[in-house]
Amino acid sequence: MMETVYAQRLQALRQLMHEQGWDLVILTGSDPHASEYPALRWKQVQWLSGFTGEAGDVVVTQDHAGLWTDTRYFIQANRQLAGTGFVLHKMRVPEQVPIPEWIASLGLDEPVIAIDGLCQSVGAVETLRSAVPSAVITPVPDLLSPLWEDRPAVSSSPIITLGEDLVGESREAKLGWLRKLLVREGADAILITALDEIAWLLNVRGQDVAYNPVVISYLLVTLDDASWFVRKDAYAEPDPETASSFDELAVDGVQIREYEDVLFALSGLREAGVDRILLDPATLNVALLEAVKGAPDAPEVLFRPSPVPLRKTVKNAVEIAGMREAHLEDGLVVEKFLYWVERNAGRVNEWEAACELGRLRAQIPGYRGDSFETISAYGPSAALPHYVTPHEGAPLLEPRGLYLVDSGGQYLFGTTDITRTVPLGPTTPLEREDYTLVLKGHIQLAMAVFPRGTTGCHLDILAREPLWLAKRNFGHGTGHGIGFFLNVHEGPQEFRQNFNSVPFQPGIVNTNEPGLYREGMHGVRHENAMLCRAVGDNEFGSWLGFEPLTLCHFDTSCLEVSLLTQAEKDWLNAYHRLVRETLTPRLEPEVAAWLREKTKEI
Amino acid sequence: MMETVYAQRLQALRQLMHEQGWDLVILTGSDPHASEYPALRWKQVQWLSGFTGEAGDVVVTQDHAGLWTDTRYFIQANRQLAGTGFVLHKMRVPEQVPIPEWIASLGLDEPVIAIDGLCQSVGAVETLRSAVPSAVITPVPDLLSPLWEDRPAVSSSPIITLGEDLVGESREAKLGWLRKLLVREGADAILITALDEIAWLLNVRGQDVAYNPVVISYLLVTLDDASWFVRKDAYAEPDPETASSFDELAVDGVQIREYEDVLFALSGLREAGVDRILLDPATLNVALLEAVKGAPDAPEVLFRPSPVPLRKTVKNAVEIAGMREAHLEDGLVVEKFLYWVERNAGRVNEWEAACELGRLRAQIPGYRGDSFETISAYGPSAALPHYVTPHEGAPLLEPRGLYLVDSGGQYLFGTTDITRTVPLGPTTPLEREDYTLVLKGHIQLAMAVFPRGTTGCHLDILAREPLWLAKRNFGHGTGHGIGFFLNVHEGPQEFRQNFNSVPFQPGIVNTNEPGLYREGMHGVRHENAMLCRAVGDNEFGSWLGFEPLTLCHFDTSCLEVSLLTQAEKDWLNAYHRLVRETLTPRLEPEVAAWLREKTKEI
Repeated sequence: MMETVYAQRLQALRQLMHEQGWDLVILTGSDPHASEYPALRWKQVQWLSGFTGEAGDVVVTQDHAGLWTDTRYFIQANRQLAGTGFVLHKMRVPEQVPIPEWIASLGLDEPVIAIDGLCQSVGAVETLRSAVPSAVITPVPDLLSPLWEDRPAVSSSPIITLGEDLVGESREAKLGWLRKLLVREGADAILITALDEIAWLLNVRGQDVAYNPVVISYLLVTLDDASWFVRKDAYAEPDPETASSFDELAVDGVQIREYEDVLFALSGLREAGVDRILLDPATLNVALLEAVKGAPDAPEVLFRPSPVPLRKTVKNAVEIAGMREAHLEDGLVVEKFLYWVERNAGRVNEWEAACELGRLRAQIPGYRGDSFETISAYGPSAALPHYVTPHEGAPLLEPRGLYLVDSGGQYLFGTTDITRTVPLGPTTPLEREDYTLVLKGHIQLAMAVFPRGTTGCHLDILAREPLWLAKRNFGHGTGHGIGFFLNVHEGPQEFRQNFNSVPFQPGIVNTNEPGLYREGMHGVRHENAMLCRAVGDNEFGSWLGFEPLTLCHFDTSCLEVSLLTQAEKDWLNAYHRLVRETLTPRLEPEVAAWLREKTKEI
Repeated sequence: MMETVYAQRLQALRQLMHEQGWDLVILTGSDPHASEYPALRWKQVQWLSGFTGEAGDVVVTQDHAGLWTDTRYFIQANRQLAGTGFVLHKMRVPEQVPIPEWIASLGLDEPVIAIDGLCQSVGAVETLRSAVPSAVITPVPDLLSPLWEDRPAVSSSPIITLGEDLVGESREAKLGWLRKLLVREGADAILITALDEIAWLLNVRGQDVAYNPVVISYLLVTLDDASWFVRKDAYAEPDPETASSFDELAVDGVQIREYEDVLFALSGLREAGVDRILLDPATLNVALLEAVKGAPDAPEVLFRPSPVPLRKTVKNAVEIAGMREAHLEDGLVVEKFLYWVERNAGRVNEWEAACELGRLRAQIPGYRGDSFETISAYGPSAALPHYVTPHEGAPLLEPRGLYLVDSGGQYLFGTTDITRTVPLGPTTPLEREDYTLVLKGHIQLAMAVFPRGTTGCHLDILAREPLWLAKRNFGHGTGHGIGFFLNVHEGPQEFRQNFNSVPFQPGIVNTNEPGLYREGMHGVRHENAMLCRAVGDNEFGSWLGFEPLTLCHFDTSCLEVSLLTQAEKDWLNAYHRLVRETLTPRLEPEVAAWLREKTKEI
């Protein structure tokens, strides 16, 4: 039945293309803010093709409909695209043909390519233009809206504001910092379009996107003014729990304007006294740039990476204290959960376990939802790093082998992300070896000491080398930044092989999550959040290291202790002492006793 | 007395500038081939300023004369520039102001900047043009020649050719490979200007540059022709030792033309049937580009990195066999030398030791000189990574503390580079700790296993982390490629923190040389050459590792064995077994007995 729906939608799009004279249509899985996870309104690829993966773009012509996605989603795409008329184009494989090259290979003369101008970045359009120089690229905002009758509106959930006591720096101070940068760059305005950057700058949070406590909006900051383009109806309704007051935004000189008015405002910048505006081509959508440049007396555009991500990722003392509290509360929850899992193996399935974990987290005061969808994966399920636990018919947690749970919470005082892999009964030698080698990698990175200037692409190998020595590897990055009561993934730094020029700095919170995956067998991942901190200066440099924020034991019963070096054992024993001393006084007696046993010295 | 010479030369240059209407003159320490070590003719900076460091550029105006060099040479520059009228400008420091920015800061309107067009790369001039858009940049080939009366001519030492038996691939096959690349790029010619690339392509060697067995020349390869622009007088005189025949060059279609004729040939490319030429802006000098572009009907220029360095750095089976032989012979020499040093501590100085090492190397059949100037450094001398051992008044090798010797040979069948640090008597705890931590780093990198695609900037940290954990570090790269009977430094791969996108491949020979330097006290460096090789494929990837080519023991008497992991001890014992079993049968009995003792299991 479902197939027909997508085939019909494709048919309707082709009719529209015929009427409009479009040879090709490109739709992306992104939103107008280049978000990692778009709100429902912008799940255009899903609406059109039925594909629900987190990364996917489509191209439609009169005789071809293709979905471009990467290795993570090949199996899922093949299943979901059956009968839709869409064909899978594989990315992140050696023979990949990205969309621009594929269109170029059609050899069309001056093809008219329609794109959703709101959901294509300036950078992506430049790439397309280089690959197909003769193309007539036509940005059409909300291209699918004429066909998508019940398309969700732009979300407008209640908005909350956070005081300096919670975030450590006032809105006024942050805007002042930004304006100083504008002066230094010789600009008099900047448009911020990334949702977590806006939330951080304005000390506001919302619930417009699942798991990401952001507010769908744009922010235009000039030297003496700031305009927040947001759904005013959301603004009108204070959050019932926090009863935040919004007057403070006006006090700090932030005007509230309607979300859709941003295009109008951008086309009248010069009249508003803006001569030079900073724009970040990586996140800016084409429709906004057209609005700026299409004005009769357009201001000069300076393309620069936004300065906000780097400043945002370096947490201040109040944020660090909040993150510590969040990880303490979260650690207590995960310990209670693992205690429960151990007692219920053989009786509950993956989905029921995920629900139990959610139930426990929801009891923490200040809990504002999960930071991403919990991955509750038993045995072979865990071999998929991005496994989605099915709500119905989920596999049982058998009383043997390994269970992996990757989850996190959003709290008013911080964000968490933790993965533990635990044995549910007897384990095989291979499971124990993989478990131990991944933990060695985790510990090597956790113990790292390094001079200022070192980046995540230098450090990444520390977590891999113990696996590489056994000719094993994992196909994802080793860790990402975590926002403060914000997106669980934030840059600009990360642990990954890809070159990244952003050095680690004291105050950055980043995950450490090596893994190992064996198809049809098991998966292992050990993840802590770590705080980067200064550990001393001497004649050789200024030295940094990490401190684990996550507080939760690693199960030692499936460790092959002989594979650990003395330094690794010392690290694990010290960490377990910290976990035990911090958590047991706050746990019920039987869970505390269990945790004392779990954290015994090895 | 010397000061007056340089002050006079500076005065003469300013007079020339006045006559010619030049506001500024820039001279580089490089040659027309972007060589690391230029021949005497191109030591313009040294002739003008008296500065003898290996990296330095000068800028002269009517009221300022500056020398730009990096941290390695600050002390030396301050000493050598005294009284010359030149002022030191520091590079590789946070507050550095590179030459283009410094000139821009003068705020001159349309300054006339004279450069030696032969010794400035196209890339450097582009950078200058961006920084000072109004500048009138005037390339003047051999700018200093009118003032430099006894300027050395272009060298013309005897040239030798190497047969397929020695290098494993014929000149014809190499040129055929290059022509296929030209066709793939849609080009019909390529100009090769880097001397080691030419030597590799043509299977020729020379002695035009100290330590680098290259021939000063240019090579123009078209689809059906090749012109070698070289000093014909050198060509006329066969090498007395090898009695190489040069007819083979003609047989392979290589025309011999006069070195200086290259400019003429480049200005007539179109008549020679060249429509599109590949040029590498990183090594191409401005005079050559002007010759190409200045022609009335200039061919199209495609700027591309030269394809030769990557192909050259991956050694073939014959080259690998030759490198093994070179390292075996070289290892025997260094063992004999260390035996001699141990017996002569307290009696000989650094220079005498270096001479003894050179004497031993010279006895190897096929020896063609050292691959660089031997660093023979006792105690505090070794704290300077680029120490130059003085010929007169060199410090004595005292019978205590550490002695560092970094040296290598050029042989007809390969090139070597080895550093050993040895105790000459009692050592301090700090010396032993530094010695051991550096060796841990060396071993960690030597043991590395990694998937294809991994680059030297990923692997570099393996050698540093044992030092970093003790908050110690060293300020140079961890290793460089080694040519086959060619330059001891070759890229494009290396072990270094700087981003480098060239992955390691089987067949690459690279050094592994972490160190540690304490000013006024001691220096430690442990260096082996290693061969990259495939170590197996599985579901997780295609795996590579390293095999040491260098055969020479590391002194265990100053090891703090307690700091080594079991895996490190195992590696060292296995390496020492290999050294013992390979070398002792080829050594005199007393040296063999000594080496058996030195390589005893720890």
